[in-house]
Amino acid sequence: MSEDTKYIYRFSEGNASMRNLLGGKGANLSEMVSLGLPVPPGFVITTDVSLTYYDLGKRMPDGLWEDIQANMHLLEADVGRNLGDVDNPLLLSVRSGARISMPGMMDTILNLGINDQVVEGLAEQMNDRRPAFDAYRRFIQIFADVAMEVPGQIFEDILEEHKERAGVTLDHELQVGHLLPLIDEFKAAVVKHSGREIPTDPWEQLRQAVLAVFESWNNPRAFQYRDYHGIPHDYGTAVNIMTMVFGNTGPDSGTGVLFTRDPSTGARRIYGEYLANAQGEDVVAGVRTPQPVAQMNETHPEVYEQLMGLAQLLETHYRDIQDVEFTIEQGRLFILQTRNAARTPAASVKAAVDMAGEGLINQTEAIQRVQPDEINRLLVPRFDQQARADAVAAGSLIARGTPASPGAAAGTVYFNANEAADAGRAGEKVILVRPETNPDDINGILQSMGILTSRGGTTSHAAVVTRGLGKACIVGTEEISFSRDGSHFQSRGQTVRQGDKISIDGATGEVFLGEIGTVSPDLDELDEARQLLSWADDRRKLGIMANADTESDAARALSLGAEGIGLCRTEHMFLGPERVAVVQQVLLNAAEVERWERENPDVDVASMGEALSEDLPPAVHTYYRALSQLEQLQEDDFRKILGVMGDRPVIIRLLDAPLHEFLPRYEELVRNIAELRASGASSETLAKDEEILDLLERSREANPMLGHRGCRLGITFPSIYRMQIKAIIAACCDLIESGLTVQPEVMIPLTSHANEMNLLRRRLVKVADDIQKERGVDVPYKFGTMIEVPRAALTAGEVAEESDFFSFGTNDLTQTTFGYSRDDAEGKFLRSYIEDGILPLDPFVTIDTDGVGELIRIGTEKGRSLKPDLEVGICGEHGGDPDSIDFCHRVGLDYVSSSPFRVPVARLAAAQAALRHSK
Amino acid sequence: MSEDTKYIYRFSEGNASMRNLLGGKGANLSEMVSLGLPVPPGFVITTDVSLTYYDLGKRMPDGLWEDIQANMHLLEADVGRNLGDVDNPLLLSVRSGARISMPGMMDTILNLGINDQVVEGLAEQMNDRRPAFDAYRRFIQIFADVAMEVPGQIFEDILEEHKERAGVTLDHELQVGHLLPLIDEFKAAVVKHSGREIPTDPWEQLRQAVLAVFESWNNPRAFQYRDYHGIPHDYGTAVNIMTMVFGNTGPDSGTGVLFTRDPSTGARRIYGEYLANAQGEDVVAGVRTPQPVAQMNETHPEVYEQLMGLAQLLETHYRDIQDVEFTIEQGRLFILQTRNAARTPAASVKAAVDMAGEGLINQTEAIQRVQPDEINRLLVPRFDQQARADAVAAGSLIARGTPASPGAAAGTVYFNANEAADAGRAGEKVILVRPETNPDDINGILQSMGILTSRGGTTSHAAVVTRGLGKACIVGTEEISFSRDGSHFQSRGQTVRQGDKISIDGATGEVFLGEIGTVSPDLDELDEARQLLSWADDRRKLGIMANADTESDAARALSLGAEGIGLCRTEHMFLGPERVAVVQQVLLNAAEVERWERENPDVDVASMGEALSEDLPPAVHTYYRALSQLEQLQEDDFRKILGVMGDRPVIIRLLDAPLHEFLPRYEELVRNIAELRASGASSETLAKDEEILDLLERSREANPMLGHRGCRLGITFPSIYRMQIKAIIAACCDLIESGLTVQPEVMIPLTSHANEMNLLRRRLVKVADDIQKERGVDVPYKFGTMIEVPRAALTAGEVAEESDFFSFGTNDLTQTTFGYSRDDAEGKFLRSYIEDGILPLDPFVTIDTDGVGELIRIGTEKGRSLKPDLEVGICGEHGGDPDSIDFCHRVGLDYVSSSPFRVPVARLAAAQAALRHSK
Repeated sequence: MSEDTKYIYRFSEGNASMRNLLGGKGANLSEMVSLGLPVPPGFVITTDVSLTYYDLGKRMPDGLWEDIQANMHLLEADVGRNLGDVDNPLLLSVRSGARISMPGMMDTILNLGINDQVVEGLAEQMNDRRPAFDAYRRFIQIFADVAMEVPGQIFEDILEEHKERAGVTLDHELQVGHLLPLIDEFKAAVVKHSGREIPTDPWEQLRQAVLAVFESWNNPRAFQYRDYHGIPHDYGTAVNIMTMVFGNTGPDSGTGVLFTRDPSTGARRIYGEYLANAQGEDVVAGVRTPQPVAQMNETHPEVYEQLMGLAQLLETHYRDIQDVEFTIEQGRLFILQTRNAARTPAASVKAAVDMAGEGLINQTEAIQRVQPDEINRLLVPRFDQQARADAVAAGSLIARGTPASPGAAAGTVYFNANEAADAGRAGEKVILVRPETNPDDINGILQSMGILTSRGGTTSHAAVVTRGLGKACIVGTEEISFSRDGSHFQSRGQTVRQGDKISIDGATGEVFLGEIGTVSPDLDELDEARQLLSWADDRRKLGIMANADTESDAARALSLGAEGIGLCRTEHMFLGPERVAVVQQVLLNAAEVERWERENPDVDVASMGEALSEDLPPAVHTYYRALSQLEQLQEDDFRKILGVMGDRPVIIRLLDAPLHEFLPRYEELVRNIAELRASGASSETLAKDEEILDLLERSREANPMLGHRGCRLGITFPSIYRMQIKAIIAACCDLIESGLTVQPEVMIPLTSHANEMNLLRRRLVKVADDIQKERGVDVPYKFGTMIEVPRAALTAGEVAEESDFFSFGTNDLTQTTFGYSRDDAEGKFLRSYIEDGILPLDPFVTIDTDGVGELIRIGTEKGRSLKPDLEVGICGEHGGDPDSIDFCHRVGLDYVSSSPFRVPVARLAAAQAALRHSK
Repeated sequence: MSEDTKYIYRFSEGNASMRNLLGGKGANLSEMVSLGLPVPPGFVITTDVSLTYYDLGKRMPDGLWEDIQANMHLLEADVGRNLGDVDNPLLLSVRSGARISMPGMMDTILNLGINDQVVEGLAEQMNDRRPAFDAYRRFIQIFADVAMEVPGQIFEDILEEHKERAGVTLDHELQVGHLLPLIDEFKAAVVKHSGREIPTDPWEQLRQAVLAVFESWNNPRAFQYRDYHGIPHDYGTAVNIMTMVFGNTGPDSGTGVLFTRDPSTGARRIYGEYLANAQGEDVVAGVRTPQPVAQMNETHPEVYEQLMGLAQLLETHYRDIQDVEFTIEQGRLFILQTRNAARTPAASVKAAVDMAGEGLINQTEAIQRVQPDEINRLLVPRFDQQARADAVAAGSLIARGTPASPGAAAGTVYFNANEAADAGRAGEKVILVRPETNPDDINGILQSMGILTSRGGTTSHAAVVTRGLGKACIVGTEEISFSRDGSHFQSRGQTVRQGDKISIDGATGEVFLGEIGTVSPDLDELDEARQLLSWADDRRKLGIMANADTESDAARALSLGAEGIGLCRTEHMFLGPERVAVVQQVLLNAAEVERWERENPDVDVASMGEALSEDLPPAVHTYYRALSQLEQLQEDDFRKILGVMGDRPVIIRLLDAPLHEFLPRYEELVRNIAELRASGASSETLAKDEEILDLLERSREANPMLGHRGCRLGITFPSIYRMQIKAIIAACCDLIESGLTVQPEVMIPLTSHANEMNLLRRRLVKVADDIQKERGVDVPYKFGTMIEVPRAALTAGEVAEESDFFSFGTNDLTQTTFGYSRDDAEGKFLRSYIEDGILPLDPFVTIDTDGVGELIRIGTEKGRSLKPDLEVGICGEHGGDPDSIDFCHRVGLDYVSSSPFRVPVARLAAAQAALRHSK
């Protein structure tokens, strides 16, 4: 801080644009002064000063105190009262105020400047001793707590005791006779707990109060709040020193808070509360029930009218819903603070759209007003807030995990996916609770209201699937520990068994015992959201696609505004009990058939169709029969999904998953066999299990994530992709013949070398050509690849030669770029990396621009340098994350693809990115 | 091929530099003609023509036949004889000849131009009917085999029968009376097996012979040979058409091969063989035993003297050992071919160094003459070649796997690592045979002569460890299949049990039944290698370091010329039965201690030293006691290795391996428990196993390669790295106090974000500072990181801020860049990718320059742009691979680090790279 830095600004010197320097409160007070609003006079110590205080090892910068004194003298001259002047005392409020509102996190001291002598002068000023002594006891209470570390509860207890003794229930019912001994007892308590007396010198009070506000910037709750909300720790706080106004000086006085629109619905009506004969803290404490502010129209019509006028003025001036604090001192209105109001997502959307309708803001501003995640929160059920608060109060909050898919759900606990599926089908509301989920559990997941897992992160199977389904999900809830026999889990001392009821909030990660009522989004709210999103659509540059694997997903994506399917995963089409059995027949015979075919290159089984020759080995029969069954099933799947999407693009990814995902689990099989052996079971059963184990051993991998999957599988077992391409092209032929336009794009997963694409393109184009020729139909398909390992991005020039489009699979690309397995990282080190600031953000949620983003940039640049009109997008989880969408816009991608439920978020975020970077 | 392309060059038009166009044989024949050597006149059809032949779908290019005829007429005029002229016949040899010698792979036709009439004219020319008819039967035999696909064995059988009937043993003992019916029978056999007659028109013979040579470029054995040796398939072959000279025209005639130096030792003496009255093929067939060429000095002194002179001339002219074919026709010497001689590694090195000594070549050329791998093959034992050939002949070759670590070894089969270790210690020569190996097997590996595995690739555990140890190893030998009970394996119908003897060749991948004798490198050979390497050292730019984990490895590395240790892996120091037990105590308690320490931030256990307070929980006691034991062991390790290396740099990598590498195997434990449970074992035993299983479950990972390892472990469990840094610095202090200079470099593994380095540097530098202060010793250590995930390379600028050096860990970097798990890829898809040409090279052997190399380039550039003198090297398996070393030189790295046994290879390869790119 240089010599001539200005430490202090008077309200009259500042304005709203100086938020960074003066804090939100100081800047707005200054602005209101310049608007001519009735603000108690005062000045602001800048946020920089608090940082200097820390830089100096918690010492007041040289000259600051002199500047404070000088400004105090100006203030004294201004209001005609003096600090510590017994005859004409000036009392102060000293308030913190950061750049970004951190409500309740930092400290404020009111009624400062009072002592045994001054209180008498104040009493004369007020013409009433009670409010003066009330102010005195309030000062001791707050100053001791904030500046002297005396626990506030001590004073609460003394106050309670005195009220009881006086036979009153409300603070302001204590009369002077009651307050005098109370104040004495307060003073004694201060000495007892701090070893010091409350400073009696008002200037010393002021000095200590300023230091206490500086200190409160780094109190633990403020620190944690900033961490949670991602507010930098080096912003610092301003200190606002204002003339004290008194709402506790009788029935003509009072204090209140109002919102210029309803912060929970956004409806255009003044909404607020008022408490007569009280100071601001009384409203917060909730001891007396405040009146609706509208009632002031009855009791104080003039002040009410003035207040309504000022509220309107402020909303018009700030062009946003205002949250206004006011105090009435003996009939005179003062505005103590105004700020943009915190609001529900519904209110946020409605207010933005309404204001644009009213002409207060324009459509572009409306778009920028709404946080993309607010749109998402509109679309899912949530707990009734009162019911949730009651549950917390009742101690029913039994765990907290990682929020993975928003939405609230309540139901009966099931630990087994099949049982959950049965119960769900039978109409029961089910919460499936598992250590983790895997593709086998899909039936159970589909039939559940919500999923709770003890392991895994925000990109674990459970998280990804539920977000796709729009179901509530909490993962990595490490607090809950399963019993060995799997019959129950424990958490925070509570035992939860199958059949018990719990409620989970996928937006907060909270788990409750018992059922909490949920509320669903109101259709009216969604109307305004639809309006906002259509404005957004007009402004965004990025296309918005959805990841959808089924007809119903595709329909949902369409209804939420998706312009196509950016990722249709075909492995999901291989699941479900009947299909898995068929897939297993293919996989278990694939290696043998492949070997046989290599040895018998002249026998073209693939073209035999239904009529397989009798001479073929049994494995070949089984294999091709199963493959043909799968082909029929897939053709049907593709016909449906392509039918729904019509002339919009549908990017179909060929089989990606490693083989063992479709086989029984190794550990279970090993356990079975060991048990069968030990129990002396029939050798036949054992032999069969051992045969399966042999097959499994062959396909099991040390690192399946980096194993035999994606196009590697497609290359080494050619019939699988051949079957898939046949199903796609045949489905397209059917649709085209029935008069539909279709736009399929065949996507090869996990390419690491251009030669893989080259080989597959040659193979598959031939298959596609044959069918088109046979059917006499021309199918306008594209052929491209997912870029999900670094090498593909680094050699994108060569890969682009073989591709019509790229889709960055950012989930896997993040895993390979960081060398993090998402299945392992979350619980083991990733969460602590994020908490400790080693990673600024969770790279599985928001694209890591320096590493993964650099590869996207390189890949896009190299690909487009070869093919300027190469279609490039992303289809990872990041496609629904606003920061990632901003990155995608900046790097010039053509589209993002997200789960259907994130499509509205993506539409808004894409528009905001376009607006942000068009400036 | 354009209109005016020249199809044919006469020998007098060509020279040695035209090898690509004329093939090696044609270019050298041309060169010899220009040197005035006695070469039978002829001309060459260029290699391009053979490619055009294939491009045209196996059709002779337009105009070629006319050009051949024109050149034939020139040749006829030149030698004064005519093709097909019964009175004065010209016979031809038609020979293949590629750019790169592919001995015996393609076809040659001799004695062409003969028929029933011409043979009589030839007889007159020769003044002898026998050699003329001998030539005729040879022509039928070879032409039918090469151009008409009649199996050669048919003629061999007929020939044998006739010799028997004639009562002779040697071919040339057959007289005209024997030959006439033989020729008739040959002709009949041709018709019978091909349905056609041998063409009688000499011009038609010539046309078909040229086509047959074209065809032979792509015969299966030539194709496989090129694949094996990495020779491109689009080089093509030339066709040499030469006047036939006859070595079979009586005792004054003959044929032979000589080498200008001994091709197996490199000794400077003419070495060769001579067969009187024979054609070249007789020498190869080995029916008669040739004489040493020196004996010609007795029998034909003049010709011998001429031959010696020409041999010397050729070596001096070509400045390399020549392999010369010659024929003497009735006392007249003809040179039929000269080429650089194939030679053993020993000969290669000795000849290069000798020739430089003789002034024939300079030192730089000597360096370039020797293949880096030849140096390696000098250093390991190998099979006695005769003994190996006998074993093959006896059918003892029972399998072939992937060669993983060169060297030959013979011994007793053990399937269990512990039993192998016991037997080895007891003095038995052991071959350890396992499905695969893991760190638990290290004792068995150390005590074995060689390792054979049925799974895994060239970078599997077995391969990496054995290369480090210089032991023979074959991996991925999928032919061998283990019995379920593990008592034996089977391969090619043979059963091998524990206790049987086998021999393995780690350079070829061959597995033999029984023991084959091995020979060790001769010290004399190594003297010349040392000379060559010291010349190489003067010329290379790259530093050569070694990967070494023990004192003895380090000493070996030094003796092989390493300039420092580029990678000292500390996890190997955690192994061995006693140590693993201590490590397990650390790991099993780490999580609990870490939690306890977070809850008790005031208790500084680390600084309590030996005197741990009694109040601490038992886990903390166990943990710190074990940690302190490990610290002592590691300090001792470091003292030894740093002591050996003295003032040379030693890069010590802190613990990298995932925890579960030090725990029992999951599958075994699961099986144990299941068996215990089923057998109703005591609940105590079961409970203990289940407890271990619990711990294991927690550390087990879906993808350990991408899991909780490297610096992630070091960050989340701070005491482990703290212990290691204490051990390093304390060891350094001891050594410095005893007067030694040391140069330790602390390397952090698996960095993905600069913040990891930042955090660890702050933590560890503090620990190091404390010890230095306490000891009053200044330890000049560096602090740096391994770059082994793409993100570290992409953000190398930031990472360099925290690093004094980078070492690219190319093994893991290859895995993450490609998204290939090396444990899984090899058998499942990598081998077929390489065989099918999807990958041009095995990226785990040779750096993939486009992908992994691009990251090395980016990382080096970004790192050096921040710190121009950043020390950058590689320490993966690639550090010993010549092509990768060439890349490292080009990209400007400071050093490569390889296993000690590859250090000489690396020294030579680095020098060659420097020479190659200085031009």
